[in-house]
Amino acid sequence: MEHIYFSKQTNKLMLLDQRFLPLQEKWFECGLTTDIVYALQEMVVRGAPAIGVTAAYGCVLAAMEVGPVKGWKKAVDEKTEQIARARPTAANLEWAVGRMRNGLKGRDFAFADELATFWLELALDIHRRDVQDNRLIGSLGAVLLSDMDTVMTHCNAGALATGGYGTALGVVRAAVEQGRKIRVIANETRPFLQGARLTAYELVRDGIGVTVACDNACAHLMQKGLVQKVIVGADRIAANGDVANKIGTYGVAIAAARHGIPFYVAAPFSTFDRDIATGELIPIENRTPDEVRYINGISILPDHVEVYNFAFDITPAELITGIITERGLLKPPFGAAIASAQDLNLSRNRL
Amino acid sequence: MEHIYFSKQTNKLMLLDQRFLPLQEKWFECGLTTDIVYALQEMVVRGAPAIGVTAAYGCVLAAMEVGPVKGWKKAVDEKTEQIARARPTAANLEWAVGRMRNGLKGRDFAFADELATFWLELALDIHRRDVQDNRLIGSLGAVLLSDMDTVMTHCNAGALATGGYGTALGVVRAAVEQGRKIRVIANETRPFLQGARLTAYELVRDGIGVTVACDNACAHLMQKGLVQKVIVGADRIAANGDVANKIGTYGVAIAAARHGIPFYVAAPFSTFDRDIATGELIPIENRTPDEVRYINGISILPDHVEVYNFAFDITPAELITGIITERGLLKPPFGAAIASAQDLNLSRNRL
Repeated sequence: MEHIYFSKQTNKLMLLDQRFLPLQEKWFECGLTTDIVYALQEMVVRGAPAIGVTAAYGCVLAAMEVGPVKGWKKAVDEKTEQIARARPTAANLEWAVGRMRNGLKGRDFAFADELATFWLELALDIHRRDVQDNRLIGSLGAVLLSDMDTVMTHCNAGALATGGYGTALGVVRAAVEQGRKIRVIANETRPFLQGARLTAYELVRDGIGVTVACDNACAHLMQKGLVQKVIVGADRIAANGDVANKIGTYGVAIAAARHGIPFYVAAPFSTFDRDIATGELIPIENRTPDEVRYINGISILPDHVEVYNFAFDITPAELITGIITERGLLKPPFGAAIASAQDLNLSRNRL
Repeated sequence: MEHIYFSKQTNKLMLLDQRFLPLQEKWFECGLTTDIVYALQEMVVRGAPAIGVTAAYGCVLAAMEVGPVKGWKKAVDEKTEQIARARPTAANLEWAVGRMRNGLKGRDFAFADELATFWLELALDIHRRDVQDNRLIGSLGAVLLSDMDTVMTHCNAGALATGGYGTALGVVRAAVEQGRKIRVIANETRPFLQGARLTAYELVRDGIGVTVACDNACAHLMQKGLVQKVIVGADRIAANGDVANKIGTYGVAIAAARHGIPFYVAAPFSTFDRDIATGELIPIENRTPDEVRYINGISILPDHVEVYNFAFDITPAELITGIITERGLLKPPFGAAIASAQDLNLSRNRL
């Protein structure tokens, strides 16, 4: 499912607009930095790895937009900074913009459009690698699933949340590709309904059995023995393994622990943030009450009622059975496992 | 808030239609048994004690409907049985119809309309007593709340769920009447949105501070220290204290236990069912997928996706701090506490 692509004909980034799925397949066209910031903030595109990929292409558009002017480096810097700050929680956003900027080290460009040409290759590479990492996560994680398992997932950690293929749904897809029969329970994931609208949409397209339930049903479904594994994605993973993910993940993890159901997080290393020691320090985005208040444009609330709309929560490492990454399954204690997996990769990159 | 009343002018039961709140205040008129069954099944009225009160008035309408025909007793019996079976989970439904039928013991009526006249007084009494019991629950429970507490509640256990005043919200109202400052977090309660639509509506009308949150936010709000107590209603309470209540209650209870937050159930004795030993044996209503699929008439799901829509779940007694009843606060072990409170009442009634 190609839902993000850069058109070299028009120099536009095309995003399948996730606000209208599954009822309408509309494309959102980004030509300017402000389009990218809007697309990120309004959730035309969401999901930490997809946010990262979009931001990388956004840097390309920023460089194109600045064009051949004096002081273009500073202008590009300001625009990429706007992209990096569009949303606070997903680690992949800063990571992607950082990768683009780091790509400049030791290089010099006369004009912003030279930079844009260089950055486009880098963005395409980030995108390609994200899909590769997803496939690795899938095949490494698939061994955790048994034939006939039902996997509960929260929000959408599928192709639409990544460059393609998916993290949590990548694991499900890989297990199905390996010949196991897997069903999915998709929590609908209020307020944006990513589970109902996006996860169900992806799985129906793939012919993988999916049942949607309201978020508040998760503990009951576990109590009834309907759930064998939980797999979710992540927006940011702290150095100790605490995980920020879509609001509601923490409640699912608490319920899974009570019922002895393994709880896995599937995420690429671009989601890890070793600069943040524990989950408490991860910034949690507080979004507009209107997302809760209006469904399909109609209010479900009396006027003047206050609303909490924290977009993410923190699942403490102690509730997590394992973190499935492109470098293998990390097990507790996560602090050591994360550090050694990252150091290993750094030394590989140095070779 | 008078939302259920019997009009002696028209011999109709008038119900404030809860499907349209808070946006519209429409009244639903019941003249026939089938209107009552429809109102119960389609949730024109919901909430276990309100279901009981409605069912009691429904018996009156059944007797009126049968009229002066041969074999009227059997005909009335069949109609009241339809009412008793309209929904499976709320204990108050069978309880109310049972009370109406038991009221006939030792009495004889020549015609169904004599019975209707007698039953109307009984129904009015059941209604009046339910409000009295709510007020007792309120004042007995209010001592559990401290000034400045924020109480999380799930679904609607307010005036609209009862004959009036409310069980869980009755406790909040009584604490406010006693001069304490209390805020409420109302979980929106998918799919019917009783928390967003009804609890928020009631509290705004009363001037009690209320913040609505999506159901999946409950654990995060507890983790942030925003919740001091949880109080919910109940649809049926088993002999051992296991509680059937709106889907999601169990997840809230698990999260409250993890955070050391007291979790109270507020319910009148009409909700207790000593014939059912444990929660596992309580019938859980499985409602139409359309309730999850459509919000305000618009689908949020891809076509042909399966949906779970269990309307209730079971919170095991071990997660419950106390059950607030009109006969006082019951504490664990609940089996003994429930039995002695009921036996006490039986012996009182015999005097």
